[in-house]
Amino acid sequence: MLCSKCRHPAIIYQRYSGLHLCKAHFIADFESKAKRAIRNHRWIKPKDRIAVALSGGKNSSALLYFLKKILGTRRDVRLSAIFIDEGTKGNRDCHVAANIADAIGVELITGSFEEVFGKTIDKVVMEKGDRFSCTFCRVLRGKCLNRIAHDHDMTKLALAINLDDEAQNVLVNVFRGDPERLLKPADTLAEIVPIIRPFLPIPAREVALYAYLHVEGFEIRQCPHSHNALINDVHSLLNDYTWRHPSTKYAIVNLSEQLVSYGFMPGTHADICPVRGESDLSEYRPCRML
Amino acid sequence: MLCSKCRHPAIIYQRYSGLHLCKAHFIADFESKAKRAIRNHRWIKPKDRIAVALSGGKNSSALLYFLKKILGTRRDVRLSAIFIDEGTKGNRDCHVAANIADAIGVELITGSFEEVFGKTIDKVVMEKGDRFSCTFCRVLRGKCLNRIAHDHDMTKLALAINLDDEAQNVLVNVFRGDPERLLKPADTLAEIVPIIRPFLPIPAREVALYAYLHVEGFEIRQCPHSHNALINDVHSLLNDYTWRHPSTKYAIVNLSEQLVSYGFMPGTHADICPVRGESDLSEYRPCRML
Repeated sequence: MLCSKCRHPAIIYQRYSGLHLCKAHFIADFESKAKRAIRNHRWIKPKDRIAVALSGGKNSSALLYFLKKILGTRRDVRLSAIFIDEGTKGNRDCHVAANIADAIGVELITGSFEEVFGKTIDKVVMEKGDRFSCTFCRVLRGKCLNRIAHDHDMTKLALAINLDDEAQNVLVNVFRGDPERLLKPADTLAEIVPIIRPFLPIPAREVALYAYLHVEGFEIRQCPHSHNALINDVHSLLNDYTWRHPSTKYAIVNLSEQLVSYGFMPGTHADICPVRGESDLSEYRPCRML
Repeated sequence: MLCSKCRHPAIIYQRYSGLHLCKAHFIADFESKAKRAIRNHRWIKPKDRIAVALSGGKNSSALLYFLKKILGTRRDVRLSAIFIDEGTKGNRDCHVAANIADAIGVELITGSFEEVFGKTIDKVVMEKGDRFSCTFCRVLRGKCLNRIAHDHDMTKLALAINLDDEAQNVLVNVFRGDPERLLKPADTLAEIVPIIRPFLPIPAREVALYAYLHVEGFEIRQCPHSHNALINDVHSLLNDYTWRHPSTKYAIVNLSEQLVSYGFMPGTHADICPVRGESDLSEYRPCRML
């Protein structure tokens, strides 16, 4: 097929827009969507020190490349990457993340669950079972990233959450019947380094394609604990439905943003954990998982 | 299998509760759920005149039977049934509804799209195409039922909407990204006969079983226009997911009730349609469909 804009050979077809796009127009479309998200949410301001959570996978590598591309020439914004070693045997290799950060030309900060919490995720799974391992890992990883970003005086933490991830999160909250998580803002927690999500309006397959076009040597192994995640179930259901109704993921993410924008529920205020003596999320949730 | 409560042979297994139930315990469980819904929502009050929307299918027949059973001895509440002929060739037979109302011992009021709107649903579909025929039919049927209930001084209109119907409706609104319909109350519209939904907490298969146990001769044909409904798509998706996570439909309906109960958005006030000079729903939506 030919590109709907310039008649060069197309490399992708977007069902939701009806457009075939060549490499140049795909990249232009991709980057304009991510830039618009940053502008609309006012996610980046002068003097910001931004840390990208870099796992070494395709999503976070693509995000680091993209932010370096648009911010590399700005002297008033600093960009770094943070790699967290959760301690899963056979997963996550620091060298992969280090090579990518090096190739893109960004400083890499490293940390681990072992250093921050005193135990690896493998140990947590061994003690608590692997049924909720993804929930544990996600919450602890968020906590760990925040701690390291805070210690390094970062003002923003950039996560490579894409349209599919967010639509799945919203749907999981609907299937669980959780109104508070649907109404509360996700990224305005007090005393916490604010989170930015530039790839929010971009489907997972487009982020993957962008990564293949720009980054070499990223990690493609899946976490050995991820087979249990509820999100996998919702993932295939949502993809099936979106095949028949192509704009569904956008509709779900817009719904979520609108529900939050009404401001019916204020953001959670981080309390001080009485055990660990530091600010924490939602009733010391990370502490309860250790 | 044996009943989990009395060791008689079971006739149903409820995956969401883990219970096997015999006929007597199934009926007791079913009726206590519907009565609790009526009590919690304060749906029935002394001096109420209740009209059941009776299509002649299993759901509405079961509802009429159930309401007659619990209200039959009360002198302060009157029960009737309304049958609407939408004008679909080969569907809806007034005689089926008449026989059921007669067998249960309830007065039947009849009306039709032809009388109220001057055209049948077949004519509307012929003029507008059948892509949205279920939406047209649902809105016009609601309008028609309300008009007839209002003309007969009814104070409540009882619909046989069950747990599956409501969970599907909520999910369609999520997939469409429609926050207003998630936050607005469905049954408190001004100048409109209030709607009650006693089967809201009961799964479709249990309503069907209750109908098979108590009512004879109900209609089992499907409407010939229903193959296009978006709801069919959501129906199978939700059933698949509920098979793996049995309480999902309850979670979704509870979510919807909680979102509405916050009272973030007031109920719609019915305006006066400038063309037809009568109160109507959401910007004269029925008028636009004719």
